[in-house]
Amino acid sequence: MELEAAAALGKYLGAGIACLALAGAGIGVGNVAASFLNGALRNPAAAKEQTATLFIGLAFAEALGIFGLVVAMLLLFAV
Amino acid sequence: MELEAAAALGKYLGAGIACLALAGAGIGVGNVAASFLNGALRNPAAAKEQTATLFIGLAFAEALGIFGLVVAMLLLFAV
Amino acid sequence: MELEAAAALGKYLGAGIACLALAGAGIGVGNVAASFLNGALRNPAAAKEQTATLFIGLAFAEALGIFGLVVAMLLLFAV
Amino acid sequence: MELEAAAALGKYLGAGIACLALAGAGIGVGNVAASFLNGALRNPAAAKEQTATLFIGLAFAEALGIFGLVVAMLLLFAV
Amino acid sequence: MELEAAAALGKYLGAGIACLALAGAGIGVGNVAASFLNGALRNPAAAKEQTATLFIGLAFAEALGIFGLVVAMLLLFAV
Repeated sequence: MELEAAAALGKYLGAGIACLALAGAGIGVGNVAASFLNGALRNPAAAKEQTATLFIGLAFAEALGIFGLVVAMLLLFAV
Repeated sequence: MELEAAAALGKYLGAGIACLALAGAGIGVGNVAASFLNGALRNPAAAKEQTATLFIGLAFAEALGIFGLVVAMLLLFAV
Repeated sequence: MELEAAAALGKYLGAGIACLALAGAGIGVGNVAASFLNGALRNPAAAKEQTATLFIGLAFAEALGIFGLVVAMLLLFAV
Repeated sequence: MELEAAAALGKYLGAGIACLALAGAGIGVGNVAASFLNGALRNPAAAKEQTATLFIGLAFAEALGIFGLVVAMLLLFAV
Repeated sequence: MELEAAAALGKYLGAGIACLALAGAGIGVGNVAASFLNGALRNPAAAKEQTATLFIGLAFAEALGIFGLVVAMLLLFAV
């Protein structure tokens, strides 16, 4: 296999595999929002106070998915 | 393997693998909606108030799946 | 491996792998419907009100599975 | 590898991998029916009313498994 | 396969596979935030006191994902 062929194969396969990060982040994000909804519907009076924590949790988990997307994009367009 | 062959193999396999992001997002989205339904049927009076949070959770989780779909589409049609 | 052989191998394997998105969506859809049934049988009076939410949850989760099916179909018939 | 060999390898392996969609759908379908039975045995009076929801949940989750089966069949007999 | 081709294939594939660390970290981060929200909505008076612990948990789990990202970046740009 020549250099260009190997690089193309690696880049495209690697970009696909990097998307697995999105799967884990999706499970995590779902877990955060699910727990908030669970709690907020049990104790609605306290929900407002925890909205900031909800978004912090969503942001931390979503960030990990976006890091994977960044690696996929770098593989597709930058290297 | 020549360049075109390697690129085709990588693109098509990579697009398939990128769809695994949809699996994780599907689990996450299901978890969010399940928790909302669970809580809303236990305490229907509070359900209206949390509808916005439901859609925020669904949107964050769905977004991660759609990022994976975008990578798959880029692999199939853009690179 | 020549171009046609690599493309065929990638397409067919990729279409199979893209179906894994259906697995995650199936778990998510099942979770949504299970939670609704769980709650509706505990509190049948509130079930009618949440039917819309049930279908929203089912639709969001099912959509992620259908995105995977679309990628599989594109791999088989469009690229 | 020649075209026919690569196509045969890809088709047969892809059809097998596509069946993993059935695994996820099986978990989802089982979850739906289990929740219905759980609830119906706790509150039998409400069970009749939710039979429609049971079948909706089963149909949505089963559909995702059938999509995977369709892809496997297409790989085996149509492409 | 020559040295350069093997190195390129390995680098790009390895960068993609390193992103699997992000998937696990995403599940972990989601679990931490979910547990905090669960508890804080059940006992809001104690939530403030545990905010530091929330961020410690998030930081430790997020760090593991970022280590995977660092390996991916090193593979892409430094070696």
